Amino acid sequence: MKKVRVLILPKEGLLDPQGRAVEEMLKDNGFKVENVRVGKVVEMEVEDNQDVSSIVDKYIINPLIEEYEIEEV
Amino acid sequence: MKKVRVLILPKEGLLDPQGRAVEEMLKDNGFKVENVRVGKVVEMEVEDNQDVSSIVDKYIINPLIEEYEIEEV
Repeated sequence: MKKVRVLILPKEGLLDPQGRAVEEMLKDNGFKVENVRVGKVVEMEVEDNQDVSSIVDKYIINPLIEEYEIEEV
Repeated sequence: MKKVRVLILPKEGLLDPQGRAVEEMLKDNGFKVENVRVGKVVEMEVEDNQDVSSIVDKYIINPLIEEYEIEEV
């Protein structure tokens, strides 16, 4: 088995209300932050020869509004 | 400015209903997966000398139920 992490973020340019809310809140508290985006992370163990992107494309993300990266941990 | 990603996951051993749901769904579809956990990722640009963990501890996570890692991108 291998352990992978899938980082899922709203596509660049799409509305990201959670990211906007976090950014405003941090700015209101005096921090200099930009381009805050909030997404999901899915960590899992899969078989060594499992193609992770085929799982993610079909079962985990919405490709119209989300993009992702896979990291092996 | 530097770009960072904060990976936020439910603490090991705590109930993770989203992770359970994803794991069951993938198993029902024939995949061999284990230890699925679902959390959040927050990507942002901050000042180069900004201590990111102080932001995360105070404003982003609930330390009772969540743990996190910071990655520079």
